[in-house]
Amino acid sequence: MTRHPPMVPVEFEDEFVRGLTEIFEQKIVFNQVLGLKITSLQPEAVTGLIAMKPDLVGHYAFNRLHGGVISAGLDAMGGLAVMAAIGARHMDEAPAQRLQRFAKLGTIDLRIDYLRPGIGEYFDLHAEVLRLGSRVASTRMEFRGVDGKLLSTGAGAYIIS
Amino acid sequence: MTRHPPMVPVEFEDEFVRGLTEIFEQKIVFNQVLGLKITSLQPEAVTGLIAMKPDLVGHYAFNRLHGGVISAGLDAMGGLAVMAAIGARHMDEAPAQRLQRFAKLGTIDLRIDYLRPGIGEYFDLHAEVLRLGSRVASTRMEFRGVDGKLLSTGAGAYIIS
Amino acid sequence: MTRHPPMVPVEFEDEFVRGLTEIFEQKIVFNQVLGLKITSLQPEAVTGLIAMKPDLVGHYAFNRLHGGVISAGLDAMGGLAVMAAIGARHMDEAPAQRLQRFAKLGTIDLRIDYLRPGIGEYFDLHAEVLRLGSRVASTRMEFRGVDGKLLSTGAGAYIIS
Amino acid sequence: MTRHPPMVPVEFEDEFVRGLTEIFEQKIVFNQVLGLKITSLQPEAVTGLIAMKPDLVGHYAFNRLHGGVISAGLDAMGGLAVMAAIGARHMDEAPAQRLQRFAKLGTIDLRIDYLRPGIGEYFDLHAEVLRLGSRVASTRMEFRGVDGKLLSTGAGAYIIS
Repeated sequence: MTRHPPMVPVEFEDEFVRGLTEIFEQKIVFNQVLGLKITSLQPEAVTGLIAMKPDLVGHYAFNRLHGGVISAGLDAMGGLAVMAAIGARHMDEAPAQRLQRFAKLGTIDLRIDYLRPGIGEYFDLHAEVLRLGSRVASTRMEFRGVDGKLLSTGAGAYIIS
Repeated sequence: MTRHPPMVPVEFEDEFVRGLTEIFEQKIVFNQVLGLKITSLQPEAVTGLIAMKPDLVGHYAFNRLHGGVISAGLDAMGGLAVMAAIGARHMDEAPAQRLQRFAKLGTIDLRIDYLRPGIGEYFDLHAEVLRLGSRVASTRMEFRGVDGKLLSTGAGAYIIS
Repeated sequence: MTRHPPMVPVEFEDEFVRGLTEIFEQKIVFNQVLGLKITSLQPEAVTGLIAMKPDLVGHYAFNRLHGGVISAGLDAMGGLAVMAAIGARHMDEAPAQRLQRFAKLGTIDLRIDYLRPGIGEYFDLHAEVLRLGSRVASTRMEFRGVDGKLLSTGAGAYIIS
Repeated sequence: MTRHPPMVPVEFEDEFVRGLTEIFEQKIVFNQVLGLKITSLQPEAVTGLIAMKPDLVGHYAFNRLHGGVISAGLDAMGGLAVMAAIGARHMDEAPAQRLQRFAKLGTIDLRIDYLRPGIGEYFDLHAEVLRLGSRVASTRMEFRGVDGKLLSTGAGAYIIS
């Protein structure tokens, strides 16, 4: 995807961005539980944010983020990156039609590397598509502290259709 | 671990089981959010359960479990299996002392394979330790529907100390 | 795959077994370099064998198998398991036709856990398909010493078509 | 590692570079089979090269590199990156002493994502250490064609001591 950018840069319509944001932040209820918000949505990469809160604690002694919040957040962001890439590939379709493609997306598998403890008030999530095929997409994700420190990395494969 | 069982089978004391259960189900707050409960705790393997609830939905159209619930649950269960194996290795220590070892446990990395959609009222989680070294433990996990169908598998590496 | 066995057990024809063995052991040249041999070929699972030889050494001090031999062998075996499962699904096709499906198989991703050093004269490899979809197959692999000790485990996703 | 560079840049001695190159390219026999050569060796990152040859073919029809060559090469490069990072951390030791640390390095686990077929005359391998702890190191690897196209990515965890 990132290797073969379209000649004309893709600009998502407000309707598409609003629709995708609503699905991602509201309708996927567990993303609400995580407090996962989209901060940017581009065809090549997407970014998001999670604010620390008591529900997300994994280590009682250190007020540390649960590893599952990181894996869940990075899985969700990888899927969102795939959705953005698919959206950019089908700009000939109406926004509502493109959004329906999200329902068909599924994670095949996921790997998370936990590098450093998730301690902080906010966390930045980043995902990019390394390859968008006709049936499978591969993504790479990063989970960073507010100071930009790399806390975790991820890799995922997604089925599209 | 499973390859070199102790001559005398290890039986955990009630104090250890109660303490570990309280840490796992209560103090690790995000496990509470998941509704993750321990159903058995043996030195060789541990099992747990998650009940479906609206908070855990990942796919609005199909009332399907969010993949992040699966990765978070399997990560937690892998860690619990390591903790049980460590507990069995240090039966000479008092239960309270062994429980403190949990605070030092950390996930190095995790892989989840999503085989089938997580649809159902309850889900069974299983984890076993494939190797317990002095510094690193490797685990294998399974996520099943109530009918026993294999929905997801996992593999994790944990640092111990 | 293993969950929904066919009513009538599938028995592969000699032509299919010979053809698949020739492709796997001879035409895939790097499998020859590994000395990777098929020891059984069933629709549900496949097994293979690698004999230790100087070319495969990874650790000069301990005559230990190179981790890459393990990852390469398990990747190949996972693909073979998928090929056997596909072969069993298409018994209505002539053996030669089914064998052509091998050319379309590709690994999406692979995870290997190295549990114990690969020391020994022979190693047994095992692979099974956890799920055979229409586009993606997921497999689980094991690498064992002659005494049956589990040395490494693997998980792979494969694209089929 | 890459986040906290030493104040004074580390410059490896010729003796260390020659010694590490000899171990990596010659004594690790399977690296010889792969034809894996070091092209640069820095404390922050290492690069290498594999030339296509008949032994490495995985797909008879397309003269395509065997996936196992990629996984084996990236595993080896990840280990080399860790070794370089360890070498830089212990510049107070004599080169020969630092080289002995290589014997204690082991891969805990590995993930490879195969993005595009490995077709070409040469391949470039790259590895960097994302975190160098006291017991575990995490790395990220890339496998590229001569034109720079990203063909595969990898992630590994290594035990050090």
